[in-house]
Amino acid sequence: MRVLITGACGFAGRYLVRELTAAGHKPYGFGLEPPPNPEFCPVIQGDILDAAAVAAAIRKIKPDAVVHLAALTTPAEGAMRAALMISVNIQGTANVLESIRREAPSARLLAVSSARVYGSRTPDVPIQEDDPLTPDSLYAVTKEAADRLTLQYARELKMSFMTARPHNHTGPGQAESLSVGSFASQFRRMAAGVSPAVLKVGNLDSARDFLDVRDVVRAYRLLLECGRPGQAYNIASGRQVSIRMLIDALCRLSGIHPTVEVDPDRYRPADFSAPLDTTRLTTDTGWTTGFTLEDTLREMLVG
Amino acid sequence: MRVLITGACGFAGRYLVRELTAAGHKPYGFGLEPPPNPEFCPVIQGDILDAAAVAAAIRKIKPDAVVHLAALTTPAEGAMRAALMISVNIQGTANVLESIRREAPSARLLAVSSARVYGSRTPDVPIQEDDPLTPDSLYAVTKEAADRLTLQYARELKMSFMTARPHNHTGPGQAESLSVGSFASQFRRMAAGVSPAVLKVGNLDSARDFLDVRDVVRAYRLLLECGRPGQAYNIASGRQVSIRMLIDALCRLSGIHPTVEVDPDRYRPADFSAPLDTTRLTTDTGWTTGFTLEDTLREMLVG
Repeated sequence: MRVLITGACGFAGRYLVRELTAAGHKPYGFGLEPPPNPEFCPVIQGDILDAAAVAAAIRKIKPDAVVHLAALTTPAEGAMRAALMISVNIQGTANVLESIRREAPSARLLAVSSARVYGSRTPDVPIQEDDPLTPDSLYAVTKEAADRLTLQYARELKMSFMTARPHNHTGPGQAESLSVGSFASQFRRMAAGVSPAVLKVGNLDSARDFLDVRDVVRAYRLLLECGRPGQAYNIASGRQVSIRMLIDALCRLSGIHPTVEVDPDRYRPADFSAPLDTTRLTTDTGWTTGFTLEDTLREMLVG
Repeated sequence: MRVLITGACGFAGRYLVRELTAAGHKPYGFGLEPPPNPEFCPVIQGDILDAAAVAAAIRKIKPDAVVHLAALTTPAEGAMRAALMISVNIQGTANVLESIRREAPSARLLAVSSARVYGSRTPDVPIQEDDPLTPDSLYAVTKEAADRLTLQYARELKMSFMTARPHNHTGPGQAESLSVGSFASQFRRMAAGVSPAVLKVGNLDSARDFLDVRDVVRAYRLLLECGRPGQAYNIASGRQVSIRMLIDALCRLSGIHPTVEVDPDRYRPADFSAPLDTTRLTTDTGWTTGFTLEDTLREMLVG
């Protein structure tokens, strides 16, 4: 399949390009940034907020499928740049939906949403895709709006559109502003002897569903190949890993046992990833997680 | 209060200008159209999609409160102009939220949403504002997104923002494309002898919560005066009036008894307005409906 990827040069995008190429597909990128290296797939540079540029890219590439990743994804910065986040995440998605409808109406679309559309609920029973959406941050509200618009295009305008709702994912190359990336980077600096053996942490009791980015992009590829239009798909490992467990694993793998200091600037009340039911994804595509927590952390310690 | 109204020249906007003036407030309009008559309040002409124009209007007027009415509200046309509806209803609202945050951060905002954010559910117990939102059309999805963005600005950024979720409303001057307006106009033409006594209808069993536009704008004014920031407010009469009852009332009031013909182009499966709990609105503002069905229809038969 010819696959156009918005946000192809971002963290998940770069892994998705590799995943699609390895599976025999032909990826193309669309986004603000130039290709990160000469071996990367072709990239059309343009702004997702420029509806004409999005339409022109689709007209040119004639994709069989589109994966829409482009978004501002860092909730903590949301309040500071609320207006841009709203525009990019909602109007940017609307530009993609409408461009496909006009320029390539039979193309499949996977619009990447977020598990945060369910808010910070932690019910006893894992959340299914058709349960109520209860976003509780500005970031989550923008992702929920984009998710609903995408599915409504499928239902009302008969487009082959799906959404994916992954938990946060991690892996080698993750930005240091995200907690796992930050811990791995601190351990690397200690191992190199450029930092004292002191680890700055937030709340050790917070826990996250721990997903490797490579498992996530494999889910995306499988959904392009055999997902059902009109459906949302949860993507989760089902493993809740506390920050404490994460640090223990990093100590074990690195052989470094730093002093752990709680940094008041990083401290938040303990929070947890919403438990997600992934039956729909596994039934429709056969997906399971392939990377263990240790696999992922071992590679992140290398850099 | 100095009150800036987006969409002031629309159907509800014109009634709101009158309501606010009568209550001693000072309304100003912002919108694409010029004032409908010389006695109308001052209007700044501009496009809600032009963020700089919205910000400039707020900077100029320095409002104590804003009522955001500007929206594309005709669901039937939604699929035809999906892209514009999404932009106006969501990005247009985002422009209002952000402009107030920057230019008049202490101003109160009432962003007018829609009862359609609850979808076409008709549960036995009336729906409360904090129940799940389940929009089931592209129009409803755009209104839900705007509603959630508004409330999230209140919660996350501490703005004095509220939303109103009214059912469809009607009254003298309503566009003929909406069913009550269309029936009243057909009766007026029959009374004038320019049409034969034949009434074209859709499904007679469909029923709507019947709200007079003047009751609705009174609710808006009361919410500006004493609504609580961060809250959504249902607005409904609690009366479900079937198309059959509506036509019976129009026959009785006009003395005309036309042949009723079901028009296949207008026929849809019977649908009903979601039953809404309005306890929050009545408790916080003392609002009740003032117009009976017959009051409204009698005036609509005059034109």
